[in-house]
Amino acid sequence: MSRPVLVVGAGPAGLAAAYALGSVGARAVVVEKEPRLGGAPILSGYAKLVPSGEWAKDAIGGMVSRVESHPLVSVHRGCTVESLSGEPGAFQARLSNGTMLDVGAAILATGFTHFDSINKPEWGFGTYPDVVTTTQVEQMISSGRGIRCPSDGRKPERVAILLCVGSRDRQIGREWCSKICCTVSCNIAMEIREELPDCHVYIYYMDIRTFGLYETKYYWQSQEEFKVKYIKARIAEVTSNGEKLIVKGEDTLVKRPITIPFDMVVHAIGMDPNVDNKHIAAAFGVELQQHGYIDKGSAYGALGETSRPGVFVAGAATGPETIDDSIAQGNAAAMAAFALVNRVTAAPVAA
Amino acid sequence: MSRPVLVVGAGPAGLAAAYALGSVGARAVVVEKEPRLGGAPILSGYAKLVPSGEWAKDAIGGMVSRVESHPLVSVHRGCTVESLSGEPGAFQARLSNGTMLDVGAAILATGFTHFDSINKPEWGFGTYPDVVTTTQVEQMISSGRGIRCPSDGRKPERVAILLCVGSRDRQIGREWCSKICCTVSCNIAMEIREELPDCHVYIYYMDIRTFGLYETKYYWQSQEEFKVKYIKARIAEVTSNGEKLIVKGEDTLVKRPITIPFDMVVHAIGMDPNVDNKHIAAAFGVELQQHGYIDKGSAYGALGETSRPGVFVAGAATGPETIDDSIAQGNAAAMAAFALVNRVTAAPVAA
Repeated sequence: MSRPVLVVGAGPAGLAAAYALGSVGARAVVVEKEPRLGGAPILSGYAKLVPSGEWAKDAIGGMVSRVESHPLVSVHRGCTVESLSGEPGAFQARLSNGTMLDVGAAILATGFTHFDSINKPEWGFGTYPDVVTTTQVEQMISSGRGIRCPSDGRKPERVAILLCVGSRDRQIGREWCSKICCTVSCNIAMEIREELPDCHVYIYYMDIRTFGLYETKYYWQSQEEFKVKYIKARIAEVTSNGEKLIVKGEDTLVKRPITIPFDMVVHAIGMDPNVDNKHIAAAFGVELQQHGYIDKGSAYGALGETSRPGVFVAGAATGPETIDDSIAQGNAAAMAAFALVNRVTAAPVAA
Repeated sequence: MSRPVLVVGAGPAGLAAAYALGSVGARAVVVEKEPRLGGAPILSGYAKLVPSGEWAKDAIGGMVSRVESHPLVSVHRGCTVESLSGEPGAFQARLSNGTMLDVGAAILATGFTHFDSINKPEWGFGTYPDVVTTTQVEQMISSGRGIRCPSDGRKPERVAILLCVGSRDRQIGREWCSKICCTVSCNIAMEIREELPDCHVYIYYMDIRTFGLYETKYYWQSQEEFKVKYIKARIAEVTSNGEKLIVKGEDTLVKRPITIPFDMVVHAIGMDPNVDNKHIAAAFGVELQQHGYIDKGSAYGALGETSRPGVFVAGAATGPETIDDSIAQGNAAAMAAFALVNRVTAAPVAA
């Protein structure tokens, strides 16, 4: 039997890769640094996912159960990979808990780190309790507590969602776009309007990037069915008059300064490279790209190749990514890794 | 040995699926309606691909060669699938050339149809020869002839690229976004500026959707290194004064009417559902979604499931898609199909 494939990280990409390997009769060993599987959708308590509308705890939770119960998949929780030595088809991985693993290939599904809004202080996070992040709103919804102002628990009557917090912003060293925050924000806006029909929801944007079929399902539906308002603006700061939060900036379409009161301001936070990427790159001997994501080769050969043969990468480890595309890439990396371990097993020299 | 997997369509998604199957020891049968493999990038003569910068004829051409020379992959060119009967693991496909195939699963990688700009007559295509499409510009570049005005062969001094032609446009029944035209247009703009350094290139847009890492590589680079100019505008019409093309509309940022002369106007055309989708849906017994693309299930189970068990879908058949994501989905669908034919082969009842 061929050697197992090491899958590092158990978010959507890693879960997809591990299950795919098991489903074709290959062994996978999952190493997850957290005590629980599921990645950001589970650990950060996401609510209903884009674009399926299924609850994260059901959709990604189902992927977790499938992996945990699969006879060909073993799981190491609460530990990391400290080094990977050897060659494609015959690697040795040393885990932080001392375990040594013989594996044929590795898939890095090590994900991203949510942008910390404290690094955009002029927009009020950390100063005003009613300035929250998209992740916090997801948690309000998924917990069943509902959308409430953290300061006093009241239902907000006016909510502003600010896009591109930690994205497309050179001042703070993040010039990339985080790809999915526009659509996630449209989704959250509709969920707020659904729970609180009297609440007015505004989205302040540079460009609305509800690409592909998200355009119909999120951008149009949020405006027409849910009456979410979109304002192209450059936001200067978020302050408070003691009663309300005040969003100040310039409406870039009418070229007028705006000063608008809100009960709650939501930062649509971006996807930073995983804060551990330097350590991961050193442990696996792979290169990072200019922004600090794990570098990948072009897609025409074996998808998800890194700079080190036999080590593949999938999902948001490579840059801001959607859950669906992370899953596709996890499957694709599993296919490439499976082909590798199969080939090595079949070849006479490795027999 | 398990039954082969039928792969319908030999663009990036289908080529990826067929090769992936072969690479893990499974058989694939590719059915392509055109006499040549490669899909849009080859048949429409694309130039350098997003985001790798590799020439389509090399990158996708390499995928074609790999499939054509693979001992486990057979190819039927110039024919279509007329019907698929049977059950998952034991389907019978009837081809238009009379061939009958026993297959275990099917992957629809049937792609899209380029929007025909003739359906947006007020923007001058079909009336003025120097109004062209992004595909025609790709062909000018890939053929080595260079960027020239079709009317008289001169080098254009001023080029306008109009985004969202056949996308985000309810007047003509296309409210979806075509996902990749913004980035492709940035890429083309840089290629024009590289070949013709004295040519001024303007991009007229509603929203710039260079999502994820495309932001840095295309949006910023095109402005800063290549001096491409971006104007947020609503274009009313493209006419001619006898010497120059005239683009008329409104600059939506300064709220002023614009009337600007150009030598060449480029339509960034969108991705329609494959014109054959009704026939494909009937032949395979699968559902289409609201806009006419092939409907797919949510991503958390086996990726690329259609409404019919054992029939999978990948790439732009499901909606506007990038080449890289099409390849990922092709691999993922191959993984799901391979797991299915393997399971059927391994199960005692099917032995």
